[in-house]
Amino acid sequence: MSIDGFFKVSEEYAANPTSNPYGPNPADYLSNVSNFQIIESTLREGEQFANAFFSTETKIAIAKALDEFGVDYIELTSPVASEQSRKDCEAICKLGLKSKILTHIRCHMDDARVAVETGVDGVDVVIGTSQFLRDYSHGKDMMYITQSAIEVIEYVKSKGIEIRFSSEDSFRSDLVDLLNIYRTVDKIGVNRVGIADTVGCANPRQVYELVNTLKSVVSCDIECHFHNDTGCAIANAYTALEAGARLIDVSVLGIGERNGITPLGGLMARMIAADRDYVLSKYKLHKLRDLETLVAESVRVNIPFNNPITGFCAFTHKAGVHAKSILADPSTYEILSPSDFGLTRYIHFANRLTGWNAIKSRVDQLNLQLSDQQCQEVTAKIKKLGDVRRLNIDDVDSIIKDFHAYVTTPVVRPIANGHAPRIPRNLSRLDNGSSSRSSSKGSSHSKSKLR
Amino acid sequence: MSIDGFFKVSEEYAANPTSNPYGPNPADYLSNVSNFQIIESTLREGEQFANAFFSTETKIAIAKALDEFGVDYIELTSPVASEQSRKDCEAICKLGLKSKILTHIRCHMDDARVAVETGVDGVDVVIGTSQFLRDYSHGKDMMYITQSAIEVIEYVKSKGIEIRFSSEDSFRSDLVDLLNIYRTVDKIGVNRVGIADTVGCANPRQVYELVNTLKSVVSCDIECHFHNDTGCAIANAYTALEAGARLIDVSVLGIGERNGITPLGGLMARMIAADRDYVLSKYKLHKLRDLETLVAESVRVNIPFNNPITGFCAFTHKAGVHAKSILADPSTYEILSPSDFGLTRYIHFANRLTGWNAIKSRVDQLNLQLSDQQCQEVTAKIKKLGDVRRLNIDDVDSIIKDFHAYVTTPVVRPIANGHAPRIPRNLSRLDNGSSSRSSSKGSSHSKSKLR
Repeated sequence: MSIDGFFKVSEEYAANPTSNPYGPNPADYLSNVSNFQIIESTLREGEQFANAFFSTETKIAIAKALDEFGVDYIELTSPVASEQSRKDCEAICKLGLKSKILTHIRCHMDDARVAVETGVDGVDVVIGTSQFLRDYSHGKDMMYITQSAIEVIEYVKSKGIEIRFSSEDSFRSDLVDLLNIYRTVDKIGVNRVGIADTVGCANPRQVYELVNTLKSVVSCDIECHFHNDTGCAIANAYTALEAGARLIDVSVLGIGERNGITPLGGLMARMIAADRDYVLSKYKLHKLRDLETLVAESVRVNIPFNNPITGFCAFTHKAGVHAKSILADPSTYEILSPSDFGLTRYIHFANRLTGWNAIKSRVDQLNLQLSDQQCQEVTAKIKKLGDVRRLNIDDVDSIIKDFHAYVTTPVVRPIANGHAPRIPRNLSRLDNGSSSRSSSKGSSHSKSKLR
Repeated sequence: MSIDGFFKVSEEYAANPTSNPYGPNPADYLSNVSNFQIIESTLREGEQFANAFFSTETKIAIAKALDEFGVDYIELTSPVASEQSRKDCEAICKLGLKSKILTHIRCHMDDARVAVETGVDGVDVVIGTSQFLRDYSHGKDMMYITQSAIEVIEYVKSKGIEIRFSSEDSFRSDLVDLLNIYRTVDKIGVNRVGIADTVGCANPRQVYELVNTLKSVVSCDIECHFHNDTGCAIANAYTALEAGARLIDVSVLGIGERNGITPLGGLMARMIAADRDYVLSKYKLHKLRDLETLVAESVRVNIPFNNPITGFCAFTHKAGVHAKSILADPSTYEILSPSDFGLTRYIHFANRLTGWNAIKSRVDQLNLQLSDQQCQEVTAKIKKLGDVRRLNIDDVDSIIKDFHAYVTTPVVRPIANGHAPRIPRNLSRLDNGSSSRSSSKGSSHSKSKLR
């Protein structure tokens, strides 16, 4: 192939709008990146967040908001946790939501009997399988765990509702024990088996390996639950889907035990980068901000400043070189489109790192006429003030407007008798704002400052 | 091998304290998980955070705190960004810190000439190589980029200081172009080449592939820079180290453009789970909280509620089953040890999800004597009140103390004439606190309530 031919192919590839470098890996035959489901656990895992106390009304409001967002499943606290937990579970089951309702119980017949009477669409059963939990939590051996699991699963299935069996602390469990019990419950016919990174320390390639291995052992769906202690809960979820898991446990803002689990909003950010069409077809992303606000207020926390999507600066561009490119084409520094979430992009131009392209854009917004060179001059002034103190938009707008007034106003010569000359009103406002020391020195001095 | 033999091996494996399922993967021959370095960019990337305005004094305070923490490199804003940026860069170079000082410039000789005069130990050069940035940012072709890179690199090397060459938006750049330019600059003799996920959309397996491929092309160190738009910046950093990258760019709390980059604290959480000894040997983790507080105050944000390590609930355990196991052995639900960071663990027992093991622990803390059965009884009371409203520790302590007073006080019979009976003082406090309706009904009723 000639060099010309090579370049042509390369250019075509680069120009092809359908090739997404962040999309599903074509080598992952088992990938569910474009076929995933969400189990929303704000009302179960989220209730284990230190600050959470959900009244019945709050639970119902959250359940309705999750349903409107379009989550596939809503998971509720075990009905045996407390009397009110059971009543709330029953109340939410009666709402007639499109999302399926699950409750989450220990692998005990006592719990299962209560759970199936609440009206849920499915039961999520969990038992600790790691040596740590077997020693210090329930003290049971694998034989006992397997027998309990079979009894509970067959009972729940006999009631005609969905059943998931999950291990707990899966990544510290013996692999052979794990695969044994998963194969057993798969043969009985569970809807899903679950892997849980209960201590939040799994890493993505480890997740890929375990899910991939499990996928070769069971025929049912695989659900994954990742805690976020080491900040990998979103990445682990994505990698699990790549390996063939189908369902991911999330909560709004990730609230849960300790610092929580995979957050719904963060996972949406991750997934929309991979398959925008699929995500937009299933989930009402423009409801995300209100949903997060509802939950944040319920548990009395602020939305983190750096939250994906809804953090106050998630779509704010600051450095001059970034702003320049974003203005030319947002996809230069932004894969996620704020409009998909009902949000807006923001160019932060009021700072010393600003560039003249950002300022030129602001000049246009203000409906003023300045040449490129004039924009560069006024940008230099803005950067100079930005070196001295924190700027806000009004500061920048004042500098721009005053500069504009100055360059479009004839120069006024100072008069000789020492009286203050007539200064254009806008210009004096600039002088007061940026450097009050020079405000009485006349327009020719101001002009040299301005330029 | 007999089944007995198999079990014996399995038990030994499980009991082996040196086997860490979250440690470096022995199959990763090139892994730098136990040999990584940190380039701390709060004073460069962090200055691009929307809220950041660092005075000279603040920059110096942050640089000193980073140095005390033990970061390997401190990266500063380009000295051509503004006049004060240049002066601050020179001032920080004169502090005589142990951390090496870098500055970050565009791939221009104009910038390089200024940078080498500031006194820095090294210069980080960056240029956009993706079609997006070539079209909309600098408009240069790869030939021009390569020639500029060679000129700048040779100039910086001639001054005897370190040089890094990085592409920008590496994951949307043409792979062949990328490998070509990296090989070229490696041959000239750069200290490091950099990969940057500028738009924050790379995923871990994609990172592994690119770093692994690059590792086979260059002999110098590889540095990685990950934005966090899709919440994968920590996981991508870890996976890059697994693939053979050596240096990770971080900032305190992850502050930077949009919602920022890999956070220092989160990366420490990730790395200590993998190789605690290495992390503790290099970094003063107990200084993390103060460092984060310093930066958070400087940029006027709150530390996110769910921040790794320092979020208010990072070491708080709530659900009954979690609390029970944590009390028996913290490693059941906690791999990260709060004491490594100068922090403390907290069992959240004042809620309806609490369990009797957590309450028994609180009874012990209060230096009271109750049997297991009595602890279960008082736990049922606490869960009942927790169903009605949000509890605080005082509520729980009151219930426990009153219950204790009650079970250790002889029952007082109500007198027949209708006057209020003598009620033990502590018990009436309970009645007032939890159920004022029953406060006038005498002790026998209260007793039945209590039980």
